[in-house]
Amino acid sequence: MQELTDFANALADEAAIIIAQYFRQPVAVDHKTKSDPVTVADRAVEQKLRQMIEARYPDDGILGEEFGIKDTRNGRVWVLDPIDGTKSFIIGRPSFGTLISLWDGDTPLLGVIDQPITKERWIGIKGQATTFNGQVVHVRSCPDLRNARVGSTTPRYMTPSLIVELNEKVDFIAWGGDCYLYGLLAGGNLDIVIEQHLEPFDYAALVPVVHGAGGEMCDWNGRPLTLQSNGQVAAFGDSSLKEEILSMLKNI
Amino acid sequence: MQELTDFANALADEAAIIIAQYFRQPVAVDHKTKSDPVTVADRAVEQKLRQMIEARYPDDGILGEEFGIKDTRNGRVWVLDPIDGTKSFIIGRPSFGTLISLWDGDTPLLGVIDQPITKERWIGIKGQATTFNGQVVHVRSCPDLRNARVGSTTPRYMTPSLIVELNEKVDFIAWGGDCYLYGLLAGGNLDIVIEQHLEPFDYAALVPVVHGAGGEMCDWNGRPLTLQSNGQVAAFGDSSLKEEILSMLKNI
Repeated sequence: MQELTDFANALADEAAIIIAQYFRQPVAVDHKTKSDPVTVADRAVEQKLRQMIEARYPDDGILGEEFGIKDTRNGRVWVLDPIDGTKSFIIGRPSFGTLISLWDGDTPLLGVIDQPITKERWIGIKGQATTFNGQVVHVRSCPDLRNARVGSTTPRYMTPSLIVELNEKVDFIAWGGDCYLYGLLAGGNLDIVIEQHLEPFDYAALVPVVHGAGGEMCDWNGRPLTLQSNGQVAAFGDSSLKEEILSMLKNI
Repeated sequence: MQELTDFANALADEAAIIIAQYFRQPVAVDHKTKSDPVTVADRAVEQKLRQMIEARYPDDGILGEEFGIKDTRNGRVWVLDPIDGTKSFIIGRPSFGTLISLWDGDTPLLGVIDQPITKERWIGIKGQATTFNGQVVHVRSCPDLRNARVGSTTPRYMTPSLIVELNEKVDFIAWGGDCYLYGLLAGGNLDIVIEQHLEPFDYAALVPVVHGAGGEMCDWNGRPLTLQSNGQVAAFGDSSLKEEILSMLKNI
């Protein structure tokens, strides 16, 4: 795994160099859909990372946000989201991240969440403790839902009735954040993230980071996440919160 | 003004030292109200800044989030919010800020937005160009509402009908951010911020920063902000967007 981890770090380093050139600079922004603007930087990063992967591991598959699927010949797939949190990137807020992960079938082997401006990097590796800038991090214990800190990128990732129910049961909901929220959960600063409408490249790298920190990720039915999941994602720092939240998610 | 500006910088420096000690550390969090948690760091910073102001400018008034009002004897009031964006602070996301401003009656003399972790500081001074880490910044031109980037800390700072109307007219809404959004607007990365339920210490420092960058801030009726405003706040990078937005705000 060390060779693969070193390579994932090299990918993240390369992405960071490109992204820094575009951060807070005027760039052409074309709107792919109403809620998913994509930037020049996004495309430049993915092209570079795909070239690096194809040169080093030509049999591995690639699934990227911008340039689609390259089929795998060995079961392994690199999943890439150059800039997760494009809106934050566009307004110049360093809470976006570069997501890089490697899956073997339905098993996540490693995941990287990298914030290239503040230089913060979470790395999750199968069977190892998650690190943040080289230091081991761990989720916090939070058995009481009332005290839990809940995060979600946008109210559109919940439903109005869910927001009402959450506001009744939880004192703390923070909006915005994208992948960065899951890094904060891995570090014990946040307890629950609830989102939907995610694509595999939005969550694939998060799973090993959260799991390696002692947390749990699943879909809204409690099933483990795979690259074929339906995009409804929940993350828990303390698994004892899972049942109560999942029962809320089933009722909406 | 240079002496006052130097002093405001010294206040922000001192606040940053204290805040860095508490960032991402376990601290006791007591919930003042459901949406306004307040931390040990918050109180420690305000106490320190009040001591510095009272020692240096004993006749100046002070209005702080945590410890209330000290009456002015000369018309000047320092307005302090040690940690604006407490939720971001608590979950370890560096998009909160320390807000320091000085007003003379209804006139803002200076405002500082400081992000102590990423070391980003916006300074607005009456009659001068706003700076970001020492470099002059300016809002961007964006005459077409469709292309405008809108930010707001939370959907609770808008109304459901306003959110629906905005989503029809604007392609881009980013959530989260607190004071940081206004710094980004001053730098030309964001065009509009709409919020309500703000206290004077939430917006007092923002006004000189936005105005000095060529933008405009007002209440939802278009009136200039003072320390007695009603907490409904709008900020525009391009003033030509003001009329259309204000007419939306009047109808809700």
